[in-house]
Amino acid sequence: MTYCVGAMLKDGLVFASDSRTNAGVDHVSTFRKLSTFSIEDERFMVLLSAGNLATTQSVVTQLNERLDGLSGEATLFSAKSMFEAATIIGTTLRGVLELHASFVQAQEGDPFASFIFGGQIKGRPPRLFQIYSAGNFIEASPDTPYFQIGETKYGKPILDRTIKHGMALKRATMAALISFDSAMRSNMGVAPPIDLLVYRNDSFKADLRIDVLDGDTYFGTLRRAYGQGIMSVFESLPEPSWTI
Amino acid sequence: MTYCVGAMLKDGLVFASDSRTNAGVDHVSTFRKLSTFSIEDERFMVLLSAGNLATTQSVVTQLNERLDGLSGEATLFSAKSMFEAATIIGTTLRGVLELHASFVQAQEGDPFASFIFGGQIKGRPPRLFQIYSAGNFIEASPDTPYFQIGETKYGKPILDRTIKHGMALKRATMAALISFDSAMRSNMGVAPPIDLLVYRNDSFKADLRIDVLDGDTYFGTLRRAYGQGIMSVFESLPEPSWTI
Repeated sequence: MTYCVGAMLKDGLVFASDSRTNAGVDHVSTFRKLSTFSIEDERFMVLLSAGNLATTQSVVTQLNERLDGLSGEATLFSAKSMFEAATIIGTTLRGVLELHASFVQAQEGDPFASFIFGGQIKGRPPRLFQIYSAGNFIEASPDTPYFQIGETKYGKPILDRTIKHGMALKRATMAALISFDSAMRSNMGVAPPIDLLVYRNDSFKADLRIDVLDGDTYFGTLRRAYGQGIMSVFESLPEPSWTI
Repeated sequence: MTYCVGAMLKDGLVFASDSRTNAGVDHVSTFRKLSTFSIEDERFMVLLSAGNLATTQSVVTQLNERLDGLSGEATLFSAKSMFEAATIIGTTLRGVLELHASFVQAQEGDPFASFIFGGQIKGRPPRLFQIYSAGNFIEASPDTPYFQIGETKYGKPILDRTIKHGMALKRATMAALISFDSAMRSNMGVAPPIDLLVYRNDSFKADLRIDVLDGDTYFGTLRRAYGQGIMSVFESLPEPSWTI
């Protein structure tokens, strides 16, 4: 299972993904699900992947191999807008599925994949998209500032409560980590290391890129503080008047 | 969508279900998903239903119609144990699916259903089961004291943190209501009234049975207190040392 979150805040973008890939509990591996595409001082793009690993790896490889522009096709480096770049990813995904989907499905496998894609091209505002398995996509806005893909539900309530477009980037990384904590507690298929990347508007580089490992001291402190906080909130809640 | 929770605590059982049934947002109705079967001072059983409404209504109706024992079949009133009673429900579910499943599936509908079933028969301990769509079932234990059916994921993290076998029944009703709050915030298909029933061991009756309505004052207070509590926990969490 996979869990990825991308958020668009007023000061920049926050991306987080776990690194667990599994086909059943006895076939568990660690793969990166976060890829970056950048030209110094001109564009910075981040792609988070969920779903069939053969599909997502094929999409990412093709996106990378085309970057030299030799094929004559539009690339993430030639795209004039993030919208055009998202369209290229969607089209690449469709191409991969066209080649492989029927064979995977014939063996009752799920060939599908989805992506969170965000970044900025110089002279334009940063943007964040969720790309569906069909290759179409939606865009984040101040009202809906975050997207999730993969094992999304356990970690959604805390994001719904905390993520606001106007919040500080550092606070947003904390909200993302707590959301991962919730997902990890309820689904053993979501696991560290957590790949965390923060992009600050107009920097055209990764302003923070860290691996939150299993034994990470800060993550441990955060999880404990949050867990204890929830328990003390629960203990202090007003009791109902009913008699049992 | 449906959301139901059942918990087995040291002092008794707690059941909660929403009442929303929908087939798309333009076809929303309110149906009870909590049924009781009882013989005064001898047995008390509660059944929570999720899934295809035609399937669950057919199962509940058949369980009720057989209670007079005229058909000669084993019934929830003749069962010598909760295990036997759960078996009867599973068998009834299989019978309904055998009759209807292929026709529903032919129209791409989902005919399946699942249940939480709990209660007590005099002279025996209270028990709690989750009955799968296949008619088989698992039983709760002090280590795994609760089950969920329906739209389970949003409301699971808070139950994982708070529900303990040794907790007071009143605290468990509060944990269940907060779990419903999380489910309702993230899925508009889960909605009040919430049917809440508490059974205290050896009472053989509903010790509390209330409808938590949309405008319920206590539920409103609880939701606000919990939401504000989470936000103040979040605000007081230790910040990471990284610089963004």
